[in-house]
Amino acid sequence: MDPRALGEFGLIEAIHRRAGRAPEWKIAIGDDAAVLIPRRGEELVFTTDAVVEDVHFRWRTSDPRSVGHKALAVNLSDVNAMGARPVGFLLTLGLPPRISGARLDGFFAGLLALGRASHCPLVGGDITRGRDFVATVTAIGAVPRGRALLRSAARAGDRVFVTGALGGAAAGLRSSAAPALVRRQIAPRPPLGAGPALVAQRLSRCAIDVSDGLAQDLGHVLGESGVGARIDLDAVPVVRGATLEEALGGGEDYELLFTAPRSAPSAAVLGKRLGCRVSEIGVITRQRRLLLERSGHPVRVSTRGFQHFKASPKGSEK
Amino acid sequence: MDPRALGEFGLIEAIHRRAGRAPEWKIAIGDDAAVLIPRRGEELVFTTDAVVEDVHFRWRTSDPRSVGHKALAVNLSDVNAMGARPVGFLLTLGLPPRISGARLDGFFAGLLALGRASHCPLVGGDITRGRDFVATVTAIGAVPRGRALLRSAARAGDRVFVTGALGGAAAGLRSSAAPALVRRQIAPRPPLGAGPALVAQRLSRCAIDVSDGLAQDLGHVLGESGVGARIDLDAVPVVRGATLEEALGGGEDYELLFTAPRSAPSAAVLGKRLGCRVSEIGVITRQRRLLLERSGHPVRVSTRGFQHFKASPKGSEK
Repeated sequence: MDPRALGEFGLIEAIHRRAGRAPEWKIAIGDDAAVLIPRRGEELVFTTDAVVEDVHFRWRTSDPRSVGHKALAVNLSDVNAMGARPVGFLLTLGLPPRISGARLDGFFAGLLALGRASHCPLVGGDITRGRDFVATVTAIGAVPRGRALLRSAARAGDRVFVTGALGGAAAGLRSSAAPALVRRQIAPRPPLGAGPALVAQRLSRCAIDVSDGLAQDLGHVLGESGVGARIDLDAVPVVRGATLEEALGGGEDYELLFTAPRSAPSAAVLGKRLGCRVSEIGVITRQRRLLLERSGHPVRVSTRGFQHFKASPKGSEK
Repeated sequence: MDPRALGEFGLIEAIHRRAGRAPEWKIAIGDDAAVLIPRRGEELVFTTDAVVEDVHFRWRTSDPRSVGHKALAVNLSDVNAMGARPVGFLLTLGLPPRISGARLDGFFAGLLALGRASHCPLVGGDITRGRDFVATVTAIGAVPRGRALLRSAARAGDRVFVTGALGGAAAGLRSSAAPALVRRQIAPRPPLGAGPALVAQRLSRCAIDVSDGLAQDLGHVLGESGVGARIDLDAVPVVRGATLEEALGGGEDYELLFTAPRSAPSAAVLGKRLGCRVSEIGVITRQRRLLLERSGHPVRVSTRGFQHFKASPKGSEK
């Protein structure tokens, strides 16, 4: 798809053809707006995240398929963290006029492959020129009414769990990183389905995705819920080749952090039910602070997550 | 709001405070995603449009309030063209780290003022760094089930109407443009409310907003509906100071083009019912082509609208 050869409308036509069908949608691409008939008994969730050239990735070190994959994956991670199933997404592209057709083809291949695998069709969008490549995705999800997993729903006594293993995405930024770690950085695989499974099986009321680092994201849950937590660092699952600091402060792992009541099954049983690895890492407390412990003793570690505009703790681009 | 002083989370806090309440929303800013409980009997519509520095506007010639206003206005225009009422919007900002706090304050003042006036709250978003200022809005609307105004719903014999007057936004791009025309370009005022009024009063089933030029947007309706049209150029309402060519091909006027059956009231009566100027400009025909007439005789005029990536007919930035 070469934008200069196709023009704006030709490009939209070409994308429309690849986007495939959106059976749940009354109208997808092709009118002033996409039209959805909501199912009865469901709430809808909305999230948006942008991927910017030379800020979130570099063409030099990322293959275009991964860029497309990640642009949607980070949004589906938020939908998953609400306990919602994906319903569809919109895409706004800022395109440098000189972008190659092959690069654009790869981007859409990665984007639409994840969309198909997640039953999340592309239903609308906008294309403009721009100096940098900017892909903004807005994802829509649906969750049974009153059952969304909220940051504000952690209660003292709840146990704290996390899916998968952490730190891999941060470790993948190191210049010497092994290919498996680099893959975690450029093509994250959120545990899609785990959020809706927590809701369907009434296992949890509270979750967040680990996008800014375990410590910071857990901090959001504690702040919104008005509680604290005691975390056992020995129990935090760290990706092979990553450090504990990367697991706590690195971010971009897109795993699911959730709480469950005292009566919940073991991590092993939860893992089977959710279809992914689950680790129990601590407990929610009444005292409003985050205690990090090792063998029962409090420890201090650097837990700063990532913020745009402030100097990165890793001194690296994100 | 200075991004360097506040950091990403401080900036989000400051925006959250200004965003005000979103009573229809169960959760707005503050979780992994915003949560909406859809009303029974309504369909939801979704549209997205980006505004890019030096492509859609220049800071040098646009005041920041207008940039914020327009970023939301172009999206509300699409919601209006579906016959839907606005429900809320998400915003993704790409911010150059050196953007001034005053500029950002002005942008949000214009954006949120239109949001308040339109009962369309900011419910979520994302902020990243970027080389250029890029504001991507995704707007959500609601329309009674089965009643959305579709491009595909024009029928032979329907009469063709347009709100307001056209060509002003294109004329506002000329270097010698009068301030009133420049205002139409930088701070468009779509006839919000006219779309829902057409639906509520069952006056129309087919509408589109005039964003790419009357001829091109009417062309979308004709193509999707499998019909043609005969347009009386003498009846096309042209903004004082603009040319007929700018009215037909200029775009960015964000007026509403709609069809109504033979039995519909006169343009004057429709205008009173919709609360804005309405002109009757032609009729839908069985023959699949667009005929432009003057005093009953066919004429040829340049009707090319705007496309990104192809040379602009106006030779100007958009």
